[in-house]
Amino acid sequence: MFKYEMRVRDYECDLQKVVNNSVYQNYLEHARHEFLLANGVDFAELAAKGINLMVIRVELDFKKPLTSQDDFYVTVEVQQESRIKFAFIQHIYHQKDNRLIVSGKAVGLAVNLQGRPMVCPDLERLMIIQAP
Amino acid sequence: MFKYEMRVRDYECDLQKVVNNSVYQNYLEHARHEFLLANGVDFAELAAKGINLMVIRVELDFKKPLTSQDDFYVTVEVQQESRIKFAFIQHIYHQKDNRLIVSGKAVGLAVNLQGRPMVCPDLERLMIIQAP
Amino acid sequence: MFKYEMRVRDYECDLQKVVNNSVYQNYLEHARHEFLLANGVDFAELAAKGINLMVIRVELDFKKPLTSQDDFYVTVEVQQESRIKFAFIQHIYHQKDNRLIVSGKAVGLAVNLQGRPMVCPDLERLMIIQAP
Amino acid sequence: MFKYEMRVRDYECDLQKVVNNSVYQNYLEHARHEFLLANGVDFAELAAKGINLMVIRVELDFKKPLTSQDDFYVTVEVQQESRIKFAFIQHIYHQKDNRLIVSGKAVGLAVNLQGRPMVCPDLERLMIIQAP
Repeated sequence: MFKYEMRVRDYECDLQKVVNNSVYQNYLEHARHEFLLANGVDFAELAAKGINLMVIRVELDFKKPLTSQDDFYVTVEVQQESRIKFAFIQHIYHQKDNRLIVSGKAVGLAVNLQGRPMVCPDLERLMIIQAP
Repeated sequence: MFKYEMRVRDYECDLQKVVNNSVYQNYLEHARHEFLLANGVDFAELAAKGINLMVIRVELDFKKPLTSQDDFYVTVEVQQESRIKFAFIQHIYHQKDNRLIVSGKAVGLAVNLQGRPMVCPDLERLMIIQAP
Repeated sequence: MFKYEMRVRDYECDLQKVVNNSVYQNYLEHARHEFLLANGVDFAELAAKGINLMVIRVELDFKKPLTSQDDFYVTVEVQQESRIKFAFIQHIYHQKDNRLIVSGKAVGLAVNLQGRPMVCPDLERLMIIQAP
Repeated sequence: MFKYEMRVRDYECDLQKVVNNSVYQNYLEHARHEFLLANGVDFAELAAKGINLMVIRVELDFKKPLTSQDDFYVTVEVQQESRIKFAFIQHIYHQKDNRLIVSGKAVGLAVNLQGRPMVCPDLERLMIIQAP
């Protein structure tokens, strides 16, 4: 399974001395983009061909907080939800004891230049790569 | 219903020239805190009494994007989900034509100094304030 | 003088319970863009004509911190530093007692599609608007 | 010399498709904190002893932009500016060709619980560590 390692930066923590909730969405987005790149899906290239990848729904469950100097990793798996929708199932775990920090799901699809959802072979390829 | 007006700042937009998905969580959090303050619930004061308000789940549906110079407003309603859980139902609408941008839900609860969920009279009061 | 009012958002505060230093640069950028717009200088339009406005140097002096729920305003003045360089002199003041929070300077210029600095009539016009 | 490696995340890029100016201040702050930690200066510990480290001035020169997927590193050196002021001289270089991206300077000092600047042995120790 795809794993991406990161480290909390102090400016990402808020008044409550833990990572601000919205920052986890940054972490998940960055790990998702690295996952896509690692699997040969490049936004810039797709965009140049008139294909835009968009997130239409996000779900986040906050289990434990991360704080200053914490090392963690993000996992990414992809599931096909319909002919055009793909769900990225992501988890954030603490590096030290593998405790679950956040579990998330981001549903995305590809749209063409007219903003219409479309079948995207690059996303479909992800399903094959991942198959056991 | 509680409404809070805001304006997109250029640094909140990303490579795709629209507001980055994680920024909507910032908008929703800020509007939620203003809603709580307007209803007499003050984080700092509660924290000083040993009560921390925490978000445990977020759901976001992205309908239309916001972009540079857009004016918008955020609505906030609260629903009691269980004896200790409260759901904040929030919508972001474009100022000009009231089109829906994002609909979101944030589930929160109060925890005591030991991190145990607790009944919080300040949150329960919100239900009474809002009743018709 | 141009004044732009804003309010601290909780997620902008960090572990030290005050607005994180880098956020002041966000505030100053946003106020600068609003100043330019108010004076008829539109980035998007300029960019479409192949003219990009860039900041090449920033100086910030942090006098007093801002914290949760603080209201403040940002002032903007512009000075011509050379034939192509413009300096935006900006101050952030607390709304309540006008105490100085940050004083800043951002030096910018216009570049053409080849990345070469160029004379920009829209920026020069700012000098005339501002003259007494 | 202290070097800290990082990678641009897409959400750090703005409308102009490059890293937003304010984000460099985040990069510099994070590298500075890692530098301090690596040299045994721990904010949290100092704060617990009633000593707060504060930045009072920042200067940034933007030489070349960073963009999506760029790898870069940040260097940190420290100079004593007066009995109580310390200057952190920092540079950001592109990983691939070592080209200079940003050069920066952050002036900091330690303050006691009353907010008064004070001599801080932990910061003075940095000067000795760094001496050839």
